[in-house]
Amino acid sequence: MYKSNYSSKLLDDAIEQFASLPGIGRKTALRLALHILKQPMENVARFSESFISLKSSICYCPVCRMISDDGICPYCSDNRRDQTIVCVVESLRDVISIENTGCYNGLYHILGGIISPMDGIGPGDLAIAPLVERIREHDVKEVVLALSTGMEGETTSFYIYKQISSLPVTVTAIARGVGFGDDLEYTDELTLGRSIETRQIFKP
Amino acid sequence: MYKSNYSSKLLDDAIEQFASLPGIGRKTALRLALHILKQPMENVARFSESFISLKSSICYCPVCRMISDDGICPYCSDNRRDQTIVCVVESLRDVISIENTGCYNGLYHILGGIISPMDGIGPGDLAIAPLVERIREHDVKEVVLALSTGMEGETTSFYIYKQISSLPVTVTAIARGVGFGDDLEYTDELTLGRSIETRQIFKP
Repeated sequence: MYKSNYSSKLLDDAIEQFASLPGIGRKTALRLALHILKQPMENVARFSESFISLKSSICYCPVCRMISDDGICPYCSDNRRDQTIVCVVESLRDVISIENTGCYNGLYHILGGIISPMDGIGPGDLAIAPLVERIREHDVKEVVLALSTGMEGETTSFYIYKQISSLPVTVTAIARGVGFGDDLEYTDELTLGRSIETRQIFKP
Repeated sequence: MYKSNYSSKLLDDAIEQFASLPGIGRKTALRLALHILKQPMENVARFSESFISLKSSICYCPVCRMISDDGICPYCSDNRRDQTIVCVVESLRDVISIENTGCYNGLYHILGGIISPMDGIGPGDLAIAPLVERIREHDVKEVVLALSTGMEGETTSFYIYKQISSLPVTVTAIARGVGFGDDLEYTDELTLGRSIETRQIFKP
């Protein structure tokens, strides 16, 4: 139970709401609430309404399940992108991360999670069937698996591979190896071992 | 001009709004916006409305200028507090800081700033006249000056002192000295000098 520390229930409420955000503690929440108090009403209204709009008006692309303002997302409808490559990711955060690299120009397919028996998430809970259908019905030449490593990611990748390996599509996976700036000394053996096994022609 | 990084203008807007808060960068703003997206509509509505309510319904105590939900603030209306001591502070943040110490049981008077010719803030812009009136009309026995140190705070303290020194009230100021946990070696000379001059009987 939260004890009112300040002279106003309204301030307490605003602080509580800020503190409900991940990574925001009570001290920061107080600072943010006092900041809000100092803004003109117009700005506060714009601030608050942006979240309501986000939540109430956002929709999901029927093709790749990326968030979108209306219907097909900007990636799927962009003809300058290579429509024959589909990168399979867990969530929209991964799409944003990959987009930030500027190294990928194909489309995406968001699964909405990974297979996790512990959390009761099976293949049926993920957008795997729509992926198979998408490959069947569109001219997809390559599927890039970009799921997290670890038991659950590997299981999911393997499951997807089994579902689509009979289709006329190349299945690839993002490279695993020693990251730029990482010390070999501190790299785990699995990663280092894999990076030696999958070594590539040196191109200086 | 902000370039849309994501697939949705709505998401961009929400990120921009979060990033307008002090100390929140773009990366954190993205994380917070995605958090909002995952919450049920009900929570998002409560989140947003708390700021609108704070801004639109808050009022200021006519006695001490502390924020309050309606009329006289909880401090001024609390009979268990010593109504004869008034602590003069710059802003409501200072009230919160002093309340957090649990060491003060009197009332407050918020000036709303300090005298700052550089920023064009003169005595007339601050709640100094209301303070004088408050001391005249109520049974105030002690005024505690708790303004920041430095040129502007000292000037303001001195100005207030001149205004009220002829009234039957004791004027005190919070003690300056070496903070708990501070190394003497790293304490500035002004502070250390003052703390030697104002040394007190040792009470173990």
